Amino acid sequence: MKRADFPEPVIALISELKRLPGVGPRSAERIAVWLLQSPKSNVSPLADSLVFAKQVVHACSVCGFFATDGGCDLCDDITRDNGILCVVEQATDVLPLERSGAYRGRYHCLGGKLSPLDRVSPDDLRIPSLVRRVETSADGVEVILALGSDVEGEATANYLAEILRGRNCQLTRIAQGLPAGGGLEHADELTLMRAMQGRRSI
Amino acid sequence: MKRADFPEPVIALISELKRLPGVGPRSAERIAVWLLQSPKSNVSPLADSLVFAKQVVHACSVCGFFATDGGCDLCDDITRDNGILCVVEQATDVLPLERSGAYRGRYHCLGGKLSPLDRVSPDDLRIPSLVRRVETSADGVEVILALGSDVEGEATANYLAEILRGRNCQLTRIAQGLPAGGGLEHADELTLMRAMQGRRSI
Repeated sequence: MKRADFPEPVIALISELKRLPGVGPRSAERIAVWLLQSPKSNVSPLADSLVFAKQVVHACSVCGFFATDGGCDLCDDITRDNGILCVVEQATDVLPLERSGAYRGRYHCLGGKLSPLDRVSPDDLRIPSLVRRVETSADGVEVILALGSDVEGEATANYLAEILRGRNCQLTRIAQGLPAGGGLEHADELTLMRAMQGRRSI
Repeated sequence: MKRADFPEPVIALISELKRLPGVGPRSAERIAVWLLQSPKSNVSPLADSLVFAKQVVHACSVCGFFATDGGCDLCDDITRDNGILCVVEQATDVLPLERSGAYRGRYHCLGGKLSPLDRVSPDDLRIPSLVRRVETSADGVEVILALGSDVEGEATANYLAEILRGRNCQLTRIAQGLPAGGGLEHADELTLMRAMQGRRSI
């Protein structure tokens, strides 16, 4: 007697689902069973939207955000301020900034951050195109470095500052400090130190 | 200026992914971005295996486990013991039993358990086909109720016991007691009570 298992097509589906980020063997099994036991209509929209999105969505050659053949929402928006350019690590970093409503300029997604441990060097990031954008911008464009406050984010910010200095742009960096809604008792020492260093007169 | 968001195809993909069990808005976003940023080859196998599995996999009309057009691994296995029939709630309950290696007979998946709160009545379960299987079996087939030890599992076991009693079968139920590897200090009172009630001479 051989021990029964899922039929081959189910096993193939589970092994594909397992490859998704954050989906372990047990959730993959659960998702597969759910998909198979729910009405037929449930699976084509998912499969179709997968293939369609993959087909038409690509990184914008200018800013690096998600764009379709129809264009890039960010670069095509003529109401945005050309005088400010916000540099972020990942294309997905654009969304929280947009949702905050605090920024109305242009973006440049680097596609990562400098990290010798992960073998990410300046050549792996969209730095040359950033330099070109800054150089072809109007005089005195403000380049806001909106990078993470971890070691790699700091290193990337320092590297960019060095490269962009003297290129006729004003360099700024987003503030570090106490997060909204957090009391002093929950903040770590480094956050408090940076909040103290970044204090402003009121 | 409109706030930028993912392009429409990405939003459609995210909303499909969000419907999967255990996948929240943030994991859906993470999976979608991962799928879009990974090489092209990553998305077709998933889409194809989804559609293919949905196409060829269905519930076996005899035991209720997952079967393909090629047949049912459980029912087609002639080396299995026809003298024992194990009743489980879900088709997926077959797998842990198979993996335990403790059972080599036939299965019957009910497709759920009795639960008035969720409006699951005996008509919603594969009970008539179970009765038919028992009646057409050889004399004295052993029917093992391998149902959960929660309230609904107990109710279902009691209901089945009532229906099957006197139908020329031997009814048994899997043991309840201390789980493997667990000390007494971690067991709840009900488990201990049942472990005590189920004690056997050694």
